[in-house]
Amino acid sequence: MSKIEKVVLAYSGGLDTSVIVRWLQDTYGCEVVTFTADIGQGEEVEPARAKAEALGVKEIYIDDLREEYVRDFVFPMFRANAIYEGEYLLGTSIARPLIAKRLIEIANETGADAISHGATGKGNDQVRFELGAYALKPGIQVIAPWREWDLNSREKLMQYCEQHKIPVDFSSGKKKSPYSMDANLLHISYEGGNLEDPWAEAEEDMWRWSVSPEAAPEAPTYISVGFEQGDPVSIDGERLSPATLLEKLNKLGGANGIGRLDIVENRYVGMKSRGCYETPGGTILMKAHRAIESITLDREVAHMKDSLMPRYAELVYNGYWWSPERRMLQAAIDESQAVVNGEVRLKLYKGSVSAVGRRSADSLFDERIATFEDDAGAYDQKDAEGFIKLNALRLRIAAGKGRKLI
Amino acid sequence: MSKIEKVVLAYSGGLDTSVIVRWLQDTYGCEVVTFTADIGQGEEVEPARAKAEALGVKEIYIDDLREEYVRDFVFPMFRANAIYEGEYLLGTSIARPLIAKRLIEIANETGADAISHGATGKGNDQVRFELGAYALKPGIQVIAPWREWDLNSREKLMQYCEQHKIPVDFSSGKKKSPYSMDANLLHISYEGGNLEDPWAEAEEDMWRWSVSPEAAPEAPTYISVGFEQGDPVSIDGERLSPATLLEKLNKLGGANGIGRLDIVENRYVGMKSRGCYETPGGTILMKAHRAIESITLDREVAHMKDSLMPRYAELVYNGYWWSPERRMLQAAIDESQAVVNGEVRLKLYKGSVSAVGRRSADSLFDERIATFEDDAGAYDQKDAEGFIKLNALRLRIAAGKGRKLI
Amino acid sequence: MSKIEKVVLAYSGGLDTSVIVRWLQDTYGCEVVTFTADIGQGEEVEPARAKAEALGVKEIYIDDLREEYVRDFVFPMFRANAIYEGEYLLGTSIARPLIAKRLIEIANETGADAISHGATGKGNDQVRFELGAYALKPGIQVIAPWREWDLNSREKLMQYCEQHKIPVDFSSGKKKSPYSMDANLLHISYEGGNLEDPWAEAEEDMWRWSVSPEAAPEAPTYISVGFEQGDPVSIDGERLSPATLLEKLNKLGGANGIGRLDIVENRYVGMKSRGCYETPGGTILMKAHRAIESITLDREVAHMKDSLMPRYAELVYNGYWWSPERRMLQAAIDESQAVVNGEVRLKLYKGSVSAVGRRSADSLFDERIATFEDDAGAYDQKDAEGFIKLNALRLRIAAGKGRKLI
Amino acid sequence: MSKIEKVVLAYSGGLDTSVIVRWLQDTYGCEVVTFTADIGQGEEVEPARAKAEALGVKEIYIDDLREEYVRDFVFPMFRANAIYEGEYLLGTSIARPLIAKRLIEIANETGADAISHGATGKGNDQVRFELGAYALKPGIQVIAPWREWDLNSREKLMQYCEQHKIPVDFSSGKKKSPYSMDANLLHISYEGGNLEDPWAEAEEDMWRWSVSPEAAPEAPTYISVGFEQGDPVSIDGERLSPATLLEKLNKLGGANGIGRLDIVENRYVGMKSRGCYETPGGTILMKAHRAIESITLDREVAHMKDSLMPRYAELVYNGYWWSPERRMLQAAIDESQAVVNGEVRLKLYKGSVSAVGRRSADSLFDERIATFEDDAGAYDQKDAEGFIKLNALRLRIAAGKGRKLI
Repeated sequence: MSKIEKVVLAYSGGLDTSVIVRWLQDTYGCEVVTFTADIGQGEEVEPARAKAEALGVKEIYIDDLREEYVRDFVFPMFRANAIYEGEYLLGTSIARPLIAKRLIEIANETGADAISHGATGKGNDQVRFELGAYALKPGIQVIAPWREWDLNSREKLMQYCEQHKIPVDFSSGKKKSPYSMDANLLHISYEGGNLEDPWAEAEEDMWRWSVSPEAAPEAPTYISVGFEQGDPVSIDGERLSPATLLEKLNKLGGANGIGRLDIVENRYVGMKSRGCYETPGGTILMKAHRAIESITLDREVAHMKDSLMPRYAELVYNGYWWSPERRMLQAAIDESQAVVNGEVRLKLYKGSVSAVGRRSADSLFDERIATFEDDAGAYDQKDAEGFIKLNALRLRIAAGKGRKLI
Repeated sequence: MSKIEKVVLAYSGGLDTSVIVRWLQDTYGCEVVTFTADIGQGEEVEPARAKAEALGVKEIYIDDLREEYVRDFVFPMFRANAIYEGEYLLGTSIARPLIAKRLIEIANETGADAISHGATGKGNDQVRFELGAYALKPGIQVIAPWREWDLNSREKLMQYCEQHKIPVDFSSGKKKSPYSMDANLLHISYEGGNLEDPWAEAEEDMWRWSVSPEAAPEAPTYISVGFEQGDPVSIDGERLSPATLLEKLNKLGGANGIGRLDIVENRYVGMKSRGCYETPGGTILMKAHRAIESITLDREVAHMKDSLMPRYAELVYNGYWWSPERRMLQAAIDESQAVVNGEVRLKLYKGSVSAVGRRSADSLFDERIATFEDDAGAYDQKDAEGFIKLNALRLRIAAGKGRKLI
Repeated sequence: MSKIEKVVLAYSGGLDTSVIVRWLQDTYGCEVVTFTADIGQGEEVEPARAKAEALGVKEIYIDDLREEYVRDFVFPMFRANAIYEGEYLLGTSIARPLIAKRLIEIANETGADAISHGATGKGNDQVRFELGAYALKPGIQVIAPWREWDLNSREKLMQYCEQHKIPVDFSSGKKKSPYSMDANLLHISYEGGNLEDPWAEAEEDMWRWSVSPEAAPEAPTYISVGFEQGDPVSIDGERLSPATLLEKLNKLGGANGIGRLDIVENRYVGMKSRGCYETPGGTILMKAHRAIESITLDREVAHMKDSLMPRYAELVYNGYWWSPERRMLQAAIDESQAVVNGEVRLKLYKGSVSAVGRRSADSLFDERIATFEDDAGAYDQKDAEGFIKLNALRLRIAAGKGRKLI
Repeated sequence: MSKIEKVVLAYSGGLDTSVIVRWLQDTYGCEVVTFTADIGQGEEVEPARAKAEALGVKEIYIDDLREEYVRDFVFPMFRANAIYEGEYLLGTSIARPLIAKRLIEIANETGADAISHGATGKGNDQVRFELGAYALKPGIQVIAPWREWDLNSREKLMQYCEQHKIPVDFSSGKKKSPYSMDANLLHISYEGGNLEDPWAEAEEDMWRWSVSPEAAPEAPTYISVGFEQGDPVSIDGERLSPATLLEKLNKLGGANGIGRLDIVENRYVGMKSRGCYETPGGTILMKAHRAIESITLDREVAHMKDSLMPRYAELVYNGYWWSPERRMLQAAIDESQAVVNGEVRLKLYKGSVSAVGRRSADSLFDERIATFEDDAGAYDQKDAEGFIKLNALRLRIAAGKGRKLI
């Protein structure tokens, strides 16, 4: 490691990353550049400017990345129907490569030789940030304070603030949540606290983005989502930008108690971890995307996508967005999506979302053939005999030679 | 094809298969053996006896296969978390191999040289019956009347009944459903009628096994499901036989509006088809099984299962239960399930089921390591640096040699 | 089936397809268009013109498709390193989609309503021709004489010729081979005859494209093959067109006894079949392509290609070249090949081909890091500890909780 | 890390591991237990005893593990047809889990709290040893001297010997090879030296286990290998123990110039590495196993094996033999092998091995059906029409709705 002159820090403006600013300045004697992004976490980002200035930061980046985030990260991932371990919609994972990319862009602009972040040494986020950074700028140095320092409790952090006169903002009077939370336009996550017992039910007041199904309206809400080339482009016929559309789906989903998830997942670093997630819009979008694919995708393409999906989801979860193998899979997935156009009608009701209708100019659904009524010769039922006979041939030969299956 | 002397027919006792009895007798001049099974379709099977006798059938088999069905077919499939095309729990598909097996067993017992069934030439069921039959008895002959005769409308069938004096039972006064339905302990399915327009929402009065989410109780129902070696064995601590357990889950699910599904699926014979399904117990079971696996399965085993699952589901859907490749996959899946023991707590509420707690003596969840609190050295955060550095090495080398990812 | 007015026949000019011309004219009362292609089978195609004329054919197509064949079919397939069942380089399979495409193009040009071919009802080629035809022109009709007529022996064919005054050319005096053979620029295949006993060794005088390893030169031949974007473009520095390059590799391979293969393979129609193949150039090309990929492809990309390859090979073998799923896989494969540039040095000697050197401006081989000598800090060996520790974490947790692996 | 009292070292008796004995004693102040195994590396193991004694070692383990190695590691791997990156037969990889297992067994027997090995921090072997050790005994400590010390050149090692009076045996007068080599019954490997330039051809005098193809006999050698349940059990009808059989294949292969390989491979730790390998017996065995499978395995089972193989090979290469996911895959593979019985006839000649015949009481090859001659109705060619028509249906529907494939 050579001497570090300047480091770009992913800065939230909160206590932890404020401590990191000072700690980097003190420990490495380097200049700190802060980078704060609005990716839809639901908090103002502008206040981070004053806080950074108060810490002596001279180069301050504050970006609204919401549209880029949804357009270039969330939507491509949803084209793959990516679900990690059968349940998780990858809401945290997919935000990290964008942050990594901006950190590196800013390092390039400011001539920084290192990046830093506030992720712990036990989690997936450190991996996602750092793999992305190394992949985009191989000579970059990475400082991960949580893996280096010994400020591993809230008390020690507070003490450090006091010693170093870091202004701690308690004016908001907000009680510190017992959970470790993370949010962006796709979801909000909860870990820690009483969730560390996987048998304990999450407390109702933990959830922030959705009402409980019990508290949701008594009447269902119907919406329709329009798709073009695999991406959603409209709600109820109204064309919306990616971020606006996802935001609207979040509101609709949240109001109907949709998108809560409580799981134990396997982290890339090797441990199991309990997490709760609210992904209201994403949950609706997943259902809608599958439904529009159901009438527009060829069967074998759909099955191939399903067989590739777990690998794709694993790549995203593990932090390999910026990798040639993700690009390779994406090429296959994107190739399949040109025909994924049309409209899906959905019913939202007290925690669940159902597809109740789907239509498309690119539909492969053929009523003439599918019908139970007379199909006027569109399909010759006699073809089925040969189809079955030859598909059975290898099994018949084997059975004829004494192979047993029972 | 040699002359057929005796044929075993999968006989429901309904109009269609009653016509088939007579048609087989007339067309092939052969004796017909009927086989009627209770696999939980929710209709009495005993009445089929008198109907068969009235048609001159001498060998009549009526079997209660419910326990065998759930134990040897449904549960092994759920060990795989099998879902076809992201949505369908394979409720029809999984019942067919059992019927095929019994048809062949009865053919062996009665010395029949053929089997017959009432499935149409457009659907998947003909394939599933016949592949199973050929795989288990390669010399068997198969008669599929719907592919051979020209009685392809209800009117022609009724006419045939009249001509051949087949007693048609209208006494029940039940209005003929506009849907083609099929049921067994795992689900009930609906096709045809107005479902042939994939944009049209299914009518509320179509659904038979579940109340609508709107009509479900206002208060959630909590249950716990116990697992041993990947199979459910108890509900709320009460040990139940496989069929009894699934039946109870069906009731619990149905009462809470759980398990409705409306999809367009890809048939093996090459067309898309709209289907609606109610799988109340299966939907709960899938959630519960995933949850118990989440704390007991190794990560890589879980991921491998996820990557094999689409192929397994496709095999079951396409009718290859009785095949060496299904057995090969099953061997891998079953190998993984020895440790899948424990208990899952679930919340059922107005159409949705959530896992809210899971515990197991075989849990791999390690609180000491997962904790956000001080872990007393159980995990060395510094290890993460080397982990990331070496995982990034290939990416860094590539970037250093000018490879671009953006 | 509607009345057929005009049919395009894949016509070799040989006995069988000459009979088919007349049989189609007689049986369907339709006009026959013949199509004869040079795809490198090693026989003159021009003589087919006179033969067709003699049979009264008015529209005669004779095309040299060699460059298109290698460029658009063989090379894209080799990008995937496609090998069927671990051994077979798909030499027959890959020629069929091109024939199917031309048949349909000619049907469109001539207004024909059907196509026909001389493939038997037991083989894969009928499937490949017909799937391709249906995929490219869904309303086309297909006539497969070998599935329809009863001329199922050479004697009956000869009799038919006599009856219908079809000129049979015996002037060449060539003894009829006991094998069913097929050839194109990629390979020549042998089936039937004494090969039908899989224990019997193929006779030395069967092989036509290669000398026996025993008869090959005593000294090795060294060549180098240049690649651009995954395709070979030069031999020993000389830039060659696709067909010319493959032809040259065939000569080099054949002279050195390279590319013989003797296998039992699984046909798509359900039976096992013994086949012998000579693929001299393809065998060299496969080795060379793997070698150039070994220094230019990222590890995970290479592994993903390996895991997708069997499916890709199966698609090609089964006749699904013209399918959306093949295109989807091809998109992924082609995405990986932009960097596959460079040169491979190969040693050819008495039946075997070895890669002995490889170099590329796009090489990811990093001598500084790979070296056993002092690497001047390019790689920090201490990183390995954390890498191993975290990769082992899930295994250690499991073992700590009593899981047994032995 | 707690204080280490006793460490079990994988001890070869050579210079490096002799230094490690002393270095461990000095650095950790602990007792060293040495473990030397005969896994067919072709060197006497007994001399290691005196050397260890001279270093003050009190507990010395010297084991002949050859039969266990081949029976429980090599053969199960060959059931999978495992090849890493299309070329490498995993000769080094598969020996490591056995060493890891014995290290742990000996640690348990001797009450040691650590293990140690002489693998470098850049290679795969450290990973394989340590993953195995952690998986089998999670509390074990690992000392990897090459990652810790600064004796990173031959000169420093020699100096250390002198300083610590470690007897260095130069009496053999053998010139030190410029290559890093490793050998066991399955193969011998070469790395380093002039191989570090991937364009440079390996020098002829590097190879030790095989004659060059040029120097091999002018006449081919024919052998037959017998299989039971997927494992080879005899050569030319003579039943042999696993190790004896592999040894004999090595001799036969080596004498015929078979099994040389020169590749660039991707290491798990992230770099590319040039390696040369001689695997004479393994190369023959791979060919033979594929051949016996070709007539005994069902098609879909064979294809499933092929699609799982790359993952299996990756697991073995990366060091995850002792893992639940390897066991899961092995369960699937082993399930397929019960029928893999019979005999394969092979031709060995100047560097290449060909299967020329195969037979089995479990053969699925059906001459009656496969024949080009009259099959007496065993196969109805008309079945092919329906088979093709329904397989084409989805493609025809898509084309009919305007989908383009060209």
